[in-house]
Amino acid sequence: MFLEMMQNVRKKVPLIHNITNYVTVNDCANILLACGGSPIMADDPAEVEEITSLCQGLTINMGTLNSTKVTSMLLAGKKANELAHPVILDPVGAGASAFRTESALKLLNEVRFSVIRGNISEIKTLAFGTGSTKGVDADGMDAITPETLDAAVAFAKHFAKKIHSVIAITSTIDLVTDGEKTYCIYNGHPDMRRITGTGCQLSAMTAAFVTANPDTPLEAAAAAVCAMGFCGEKAWERMTEPDGNASYRNYIIDAVYNLTGEELERGARYEVR
Amino acid sequence: MFLEMMQNVRKKVPLIHNITNYVTVNDCANILLACGGSPIMADDPAEVEEITSLCQGLTINMGTLNSTKVTSMLLAGKKANELAHPVILDPVGAGASAFRTESALKLLNEVRFSVIRGNISEIKTLAFGTGSTKGVDADGMDAITPETLDAAVAFAKHFAKKIHSVIAITSTIDLVTDGEKTYCIYNGHPDMRRITGTGCQLSAMTAAFVTANPDTPLEAAAAAVCAMGFCGEKAWERMTEPDGNASYRNYIIDAVYNLTGEELERGARYEVR
Amino acid sequence: MFLEMMQNVRKKVPLIHNITNYVTVNDCANILLACGGSPIMADDPAEVEEITSLCQGLTINMGTLNSTKVTSMLLAGKKANELAHPVILDPVGAGASAFRTESALKLLNEVRFSVIRGNISEIKTLAFGTGSTKGVDADGMDAITPETLDAAVAFAKHFAKKIHSVIAITSTIDLVTDGEKTYCIYNGHPDMRRITGTGCQLSAMTAAFVTANPDTPLEAAAAAVCAMGFCGEKAWERMTEPDGNASYRNYIIDAVYNLTGEELERGARYEVR
Repeated sequence: MFLEMMQNVRKKVPLIHNITNYVTVNDCANILLACGGSPIMADDPAEVEEITSLCQGLTINMGTLNSTKVTSMLLAGKKANELAHPVILDPVGAGASAFRTESALKLLNEVRFSVIRGNISEIKTLAFGTGSTKGVDADGMDAITPETLDAAVAFAKHFAKKIHSVIAITSTIDLVTDGEKTYCIYNGHPDMRRITGTGCQLSAMTAAFVTANPDTPLEAAAAAVCAMGFCGEKAWERMTEPDGNASYRNYIIDAVYNLTGEELERGARYEVR
Repeated sequence: MFLEMMQNVRKKVPLIHNITNYVTVNDCANILLACGGSPIMADDPAEVEEITSLCQGLTINMGTLNSTKVTSMLLAGKKANELAHPVILDPVGAGASAFRTESALKLLNEVRFSVIRGNISEIKTLAFGTGSTKGVDADGMDAITPETLDAAVAFAKHFAKKIHSVIAITSTIDLVTDGEKTYCIYNGHPDMRRITGTGCQLSAMTAAFVTANPDTPLEAAAAAVCAMGFCGEKAWERMTEPDGNASYRNYIIDAVYNLTGEELERGARYEVR
Repeated sequence: MFLEMMQNVRKKVPLIHNITNYVTVNDCANILLACGGSPIMADDPAEVEEITSLCQGLTINMGTLNSTKVTSMLLAGKKANELAHPVILDPVGAGASAFRTESALKLLNEVRFSVIRGNISEIKTLAFGTGSTKGVDADGMDAITPETLDAAVAFAKHFAKKIHSVIAITSTIDLVTDGEKTYCIYNGHPDMRRITGTGCQLSAMTAAFVTANPDTPLEAAAAAVCAMGFCGEKAWERMTEPDGNASYRNYIIDAVYNLTGEELERGARYEVR
């Protein structure tokens, strides 16, 4: 199944509009090109509706947020909804400031998202309306490990069902759920966290996968998460003595560029719950 | 001739003011350093005139445009004109939104450009005052191939003559013309399109070449286009099994860093019409 | 001593808030992760005080400045002062425009900085209230070489004492002084100047070092400067035939990623005055 999904990305070359942060934007553009998509970045209220209309999918990434961008996100998100384009939300830093939390909740309230991808703190902030990034979590659910998996799956399913979105939470184990079916994904490498923006890149790539496979957003998002994790593993194998996180960053994007549907099918490691 | 042009860049170390987008800005800065120039990025209306006065050339790149930046582009462009500094326009996404098209036309109307570099859709938008990025082209001139070359040359020459600028259109075959003489350039590799920002990088590098060779903007722009394409070829030869577009990006900038005037002279593949 | 400082960064994983430019921001984030810190980028006045409160240190980098960012810098700087967080200033381009110079002086007036890191022109602009980036220096102190070292040390000590900050000036020889004790640092490689943002990266890394070693800001800043220079040397040794500044950029960040406290202790080359 993931095979066809990857092939659809390469075949359809989905054009993705990204309203995103200036920290990781270049890597997001390059990973979109690597996986077979095509990126456009535009964030001014004067043009985001038109740009989104030209594209087939939209990523809204909340890094380096400001109030003008929030306006643009709302305009583009609503237009994409109108056109039935998939919209992906990456609530970067939700919980880290009232501004980010409120903006995330406003977006959630006014735009329908096909997929929301974040870490556990960010997703909990959306679910509970409050939170703290890099704070100690009251219920110990900061990382998704075999010990916390059951609770995390229950939380993610409940939230997905409530807001009618696919929820993708990336951690030691990644979860992708639509509230009914949950993919628990074991791909990835811990050092991916020592590269800035692997989460942002995954969100952009998820947009390409979901846009190229519009009828199966759950599976498409799971395929993107497996693809990112699997490429993180392949890239890690390529690492030699003097390499560090800068080379690792390049190797991951390179691995996505070379990834075939067959490889992804074989390399994906997950269980369905 | 290209030999001397490359050497002039390295000898004069032209300081280039860039008002550019946040997607590819880092690569633009690094390729300017690689070719022998020196970059300054500044885009606030409060300082762009002073920054431009400090420099010897100016690149205006319309990616991730907003209205404040348009103000800055107009201020800096007019100041650069006043000081007789070369000004290069990269009309990124002209035709993709009314805002981009109108801003491009406004710039064209109020600033004199030494060189305008874009893809065929963008340049046609400037010429006809309307257009669509990644839309199907009515007259089939989306790519410049042997079949469409004659029509493309005629179009480019006509437009160059009309606005008194050198026009550089990059495609499968690249064209650089001042309306009288046209360089048809065969350097390059198709996978350069799978890296974000090779066009932006070329525009920045063109500014360095034209600034270091102010009396021959046509030839300087042609030299920059050949340099980018030739480095794309050299970098592609360096690609090995697990490499992808991230490594390719680095290899191209590396190739520019190591490029000598002699190599460029030998490697440039073009015909003059 | 540098050994423990490096180890403290890796052990404490200092969370650093960066208000910085969009040219080199990705490299700043990756070098922070490479050295053992953790980056957050946020620059909107609506959230910078909260973000800074969540962090343990703050970098203020004046590249691609605008008036909104100056507001954010003042807000975050004052909040960080209130919380006794180390604040590092990188006065990028001070002297290049009245706007940058005035903003730098305003910051200097309203925020207490643990460390100010810049090139000689930028630091002189702060000291004298006027200056020019890449202008010819009246007193020939553009580069710190064995010939100009005495005068540069005297200048840096005087300024450090006057403003009660550690001053770090990077040049051929780097100086780090608190007005009493001065580290003259001989690490580094001249080609580091042909990568955009090695200065910005050093400023970000300095924030991590000073934040993880809050009682010894002078030594921590000197350790960071040695680390950057030493990694520039190590990375240069890794350079082979077709490599250029793009690969060099990656190799430096890689070297920081692999740097141990022992290596830094052995590799640091400096004299204390």
